[in-house]
Amino acid sequence: MAPIASRSLMSYSPDIKILDCTLRDGGLVNNFRFTDTFVKNLYKANVKAGVDYMEFGYKASKDIFDVNDFGKWKFCDEEDIRGIVGTNESDLKISVMSDVGRTDYKRDILKREDSVIDMIRTATYIHQIPTAVEMIQDAVEKGYETTVNLMAVSKVSETDLKAGLEILAQSDVDTIYLVDSFGAFYPEQIERLADMYLEIASKTGKTIGFHGHNNQQLAFANTIQAIRQGVSLLDGTIAGMGRGAGNCYLESLLAFLKNPKYNLYPILGFLSNDMEELKKTGAKWGYDTSYMLTGLMNTHPKSAIKFMDENRTDYTNFYQEVMDIE
Amino acid sequence: MAPIASRSLMSYSPDIKILDCTLRDGGLVNNFRFTDTFVKNLYKANVKAGVDYMEFGYKASKDIFDVNDFGKWKFCDEEDIRGIVGTNESDLKISVMSDVGRTDYKRDILKREDSVIDMIRTATYIHQIPTAVEMIQDAVEKGYETTVNLMAVSKVSETDLKAGLEILAQSDVDTIYLVDSFGAFYPEQIERLADMYLEIASKTGKTIGFHGHNNQQLAFANTIQAIRQGVSLLDGTIAGMGRGAGNCYLESLLAFLKNPKYNLYPILGFLSNDMEELKKTGAKWGYDTSYMLTGLMNTHPKSAIKFMDENRTDYTNFYQEVMDIE
Repeated sequence: MAPIASRSLMSYSPDIKILDCTLRDGGLVNNFRFTDTFVKNLYKANVKAGVDYMEFGYKASKDIFDVNDFGKWKFCDEEDIRGIVGTNESDLKISVMSDVGRTDYKRDILKREDSVIDMIRTATYIHQIPTAVEMIQDAVEKGYETTVNLMAVSKVSETDLKAGLEILAQSDVDTIYLVDSFGAFYPEQIERLADMYLEIASKTGKTIGFHGHNNQQLAFANTIQAIRQGVSLLDGTIAGMGRGAGNCYLESLLAFLKNPKYNLYPILGFLSNDMEELKKTGAKWGYDTSYMLTGLMNTHPKSAIKFMDENRTDYTNFYQEVMDIE
Repeated sequence: MAPIASRSLMSYSPDIKILDCTLRDGGLVNNFRFTDTFVKNLYKANVKAGVDYMEFGYKASKDIFDVNDFGKWKFCDEEDIRGIVGTNESDLKISVMSDVGRTDYKRDILKREDSVIDMIRTATYIHQIPTAVEMIQDAVEKGYETTVNLMAVSKVSETDLKAGLEILAQSDVDTIYLVDSFGAFYPEQIERLADMYLEIASKTGKTIGFHGHNNQQLAFANTIQAIRQGVSLLDGTIAGMGRGAGNCYLESLLAFLKNPKYNLYPILGFLSNDMEELKKTGAKWGYDTSYMLTGLMNTHPKSAIKFMDENRTDYTNFYQEVMDIE
């Protein structure tokens, strides 16, 4: 699929929307232990900046995860979100992520009329797609907007990926996400994959989203490439906060897009104040050679996260270790 | 110009060469005050890694710059380079950079037969091209390989740029560099510019190089884009060390290219040992929101470097200041 003509660098595309997942992907850095002040200021900054969606965290099952091990945004109880947003009298929509197999969605996801949540994002591996489809169906019936975030596709064969996408294209989901879980893709691959996703999904009127990781410092570049192909829902996090090497920097994305409704200043203010405060707590993420190596090897960053936690810098040994994993 | 067929992600292009400019662009971070051990280990690592060129620094005039204000790689005296490489019995070629107006090239650049230097890179602004052409002529007559690095082209009109490139295409230079001095370009712009450079330069058999900066975390992505268009001489620095936000990370580039002659391990070893030591001296570079803003505004990073030196984090004020500069 050729680049969409309206995707001009000097203009803007009104169909493009931004989702801030600082709390959700960033929560993987600090076990979701954000102060209420941080979360309130993030919400206010996103509202003022014209960000389209803000993800508060996961809707994890308390039968599986101990509430004492995590901050509240691992679970996103209705009253906790309302404690920040009240009834959310703003244009910002609220999303939560629901992992296949880790969410008691029938019990924990309320009807939309009883919730301030607007969108449920179902995260699934390729082999869990049938369950994901049931979860999407449940969310649609409860009245939500929906996305499905198909993870770790850099490890999936194209044949299986196409088959999975065909099933998702027949589901009730609104948006199918292209996800670069391991920061392994180069822009040329995003170009091909986004075209594949768009071709399959457009047959049934679905839109495509993109969620990148910064292992090879390509999260922003891959997001720009996805935009050129016609992807329209874009994930970012402030200061790139997210697991391991982190995500696409929301501030870069907001500055790149030229939609007049977006305003960079509130995000800059949040960076100066709240993000600087948060960094003092010792939360660490962002590019390192170790993440470059796991990205290169197309593998989960957990070995690099451990390497960083142990303050190791012996990259030669680490490269060997990563090759032994694969 | 369509992407070159041989530029396959799963293969390699033997025409592509890498130039390590850690000492030269990195020297702008610490006034070229590298220890001899650092420089020797860098040379050894580059030789073992199969890097094609290593740039030792600038050939600055001692009439203009005080030798007490800088380390020796600002001047690259012949005996200093020989102190590291001897007679350079390796496949690694040695380059130095010669700035228009800041180099006494007639006096300070020896005949190639009397030097271990293989390549002279002339750095020029658009209005200095006639002088650059004379300097290139001098270097060619002395027997050197040559490049011309046309700086700050993100501030030059396309009409002037084309006219300048036509002059350079008629000169004796081997390679014309596309340079993103301010880290202002997006990959889509690199695609267009690389095509323009290639079209003009190929008429007289010149090749094209690329030198990026990482202000918007796009140095690697822009380098990859340049590769796809047919650019064949690529600058990188270890750990991205370079002025402000730094450059394209040489280790990412080496890992991306699949030429069997390249070997990542010696670079990883250098990162673990020598770069970690150097960081302890307090030398600072790399992405920050302030560099993203100067990149966005297509302006010199010096205001952001000052902002970082003063440990400021008030990005909202800084954004205003950058807009006041422009």
